Formats: sequence, C-alpha cells, structure tokens
Amino acid sequence: MLSRQQLARGLDQVGEWWSILILRDAFHGLSRFDEFQENLGIAPNMLARRLKSLVEAGLLERRRYSERPPRDEYVLTEAGRDFRPVLWALLAWGNKHFAPEGPSVVIADSRTGEQADPVLVDRNSGRLLAAPDFRSAAGPAADARTRHRYDLAAKQAAAEGSSSAK
Amino acid sequence: MLSRQQLARGLDQVGEWWSILILRDAFHGLSRFDEFQENLGIAPNMLARRLKSLVEAGLLERRRYSERPPRDEYVLTEAGRDFRPVLWALLAWGNKHFAPEGPSVVIADSRTGEQADPVLVDRNSGRLLAAPDFRSAAGPAADARTRHRYDLAAKQAAAEGSSSAK
Repeated sequence: MLSRQQLARGLDQVGEWWSILILRDAFHGLSRFDEFQENLGIAPNMLARRLKSLVEAGLLERRRYSERPPRDEYVLTEAGRDFRPVLWALLAWGNKHFAPEGPSVVIADSRTGEQADPVLVDRNSGRLLAAPDFRSAAGPAADARTRHRYDLAAKQAAAEGSSSAK
Repeated sequence: MLSRQQLARGLDQVGEWWSILILRDAFHGLSRFDEFQENLGIAPNMLARRLKSLVEAGLLERRRYSERPPRDEYVLTEAGRDFRPVLWALLAWGNKHFAPEGPSVVIADSRTGEQADPVLVDRNSGRLLAAPDFRSAAGPAADARTRHRYDLAAKQAAAEGSSSAK
C-alpha cells in the first residue's frame, strides 16, 4: 500500500518528468497544445497542468495565436531557452554512467554532425570546473546561515587537502 | 532532444529535491546519517528512504564504519562525484534567471576565491554548446523511433534556419 505522501511524491515526480519532456519538445520547435499532446501521448488535463506550471515558473510564455477559435501557443522564454545546457549536462552525465550499450542521444555539431563532448568550464579562463580546484561558496546575497555553512565546508575541505594524500 | 529513457536515467536517479540536498552535503564532505539529518533538518525515515534510493541509483555507496553499534556511512561513487557539474550548471542557470537580489551561492576558485562563470563547452574544440550551432541528435544506440524523431527535428530546424532571418 502506498501512503498518501508516497502517492503525492510519486505524482510530483511524474509531473516534473512531463515538464522536462515538454521542454525537450519546445527545444525541438513544438509550441501548440495539440503538437505536445500528439508527440507525448499525454492526457490533456495533465498537459494543461504542466504547461501552466512551466508558464508560472517562467520557462514558457503563453501567446494567443488564434482568436476564433481561441488558441494559445507556448514559446520558450529566455530562462527556458537557457535551460538547454542544463539538460545537456544531465544528458552527458547519463551517457557516461548509465548507457553501457552506448548513448541513444548525443549532442552534435548541427552542420557536420560530429559528436560533442560536453564539459562545464569557467567562461573567462576556460578552466574545467571540477573539485578540488573549484568549489561552491557563499555569494554576495548569502544570508548569515548560508555564509556560515560554506565557510565551514571550505575549512573542512582545506583540512582534508592538507591531511590526506588524495 | 533527450530520449525518454535517457531522461529517466538522468532524473529518476536523482528523484527529488531532498536527494539533491543530500548530494550537495556529500560534496561538502558529509557522509554519516546523523550529519545529514542535523544539517538538513530532515525526518529520519525520509532521509533513510532518500539515502537508499541514492545507493540504488549508484550515486552513493554504503559502507559500515562501526560494528558496535552498527553504523554506516554514505560516500559518493564515481557517478555521484560526476554529478557535481550538473548541479553547478543548474545553479548557474538559477543564479542568472531567478536571483534578482544576486546569487547566494556561487562557484569559486578554491585557492583565490574568484567567482567562476560556468558554461557548457565541447571538450575538444572548446566551442560553446548552444543552439543553433549544436543540437541533440540520435546516438549510436538509438532505436528506430528515436532516430526518426531526431531526424525530423533536424529537418525542421534546417527549414526554419533557411526560411527565417533569426
């Protein structure tokens, strides 16, 4: 038996899951309710709910493209478009660790088709963003608690760095 | 973009928000049940469930560090450690679009403290991974349906590219 909370959690995950698939389709140029529905095979009420939540989250913008009958399309906002590299970073990670049979989707040069190898770097220096060279740290708008948490983590990391051969 | 299976691989591994917070703490060097619990203020049964799911997903490994009383610690696997750039890409995206008051957490050089600007690039060429120069495409292990979907999306993108001034 599932508890009510378990069900809620499950549904929540499914909801997020659909949102990602809707974004994927939006990156492919789909924008209309019927297009999403046909491509995803999603129930209309679930699709409506996910589109609403993506609009509220600021990733999609709703635009009327027909008055009679009233019809809206959903286009990516700047925040929505900028989510693509996050999805690509996730894809690269999944390909590396969870695709023993080889990747079924890759990132490729649009012109040549050559496969890319996505890595996160610092835009200015071009250096690979990886520990221990880089770490997360309190930013300018951090509150006292966050600042304390990250100061502590940095000290811990420094102590480990000097006490171990790793 | 991503196939349904690949997304399942990526997102289902992480599952939900608590899992992300546990991973964040693990990146900070926390490994024991009590440490996670104290730092996150999470209910013990919820924490136990999330740790179990992260172990099953292959991101954490459970190791006994005390026999009497029996106590386990949870350490990052290679897949777990490799998830950090994905989290950082997500952080950078959130900072750009949803932190009007400035970021409260940033990625910084561990030595100098200088703030980094995370971007996704191709490891070999160093080119920025962004549309329209790059796109997702069917990989070597793609099934016929995935291949068809991505061929279609590529054609659509090419048609848009030649018919619009964008």
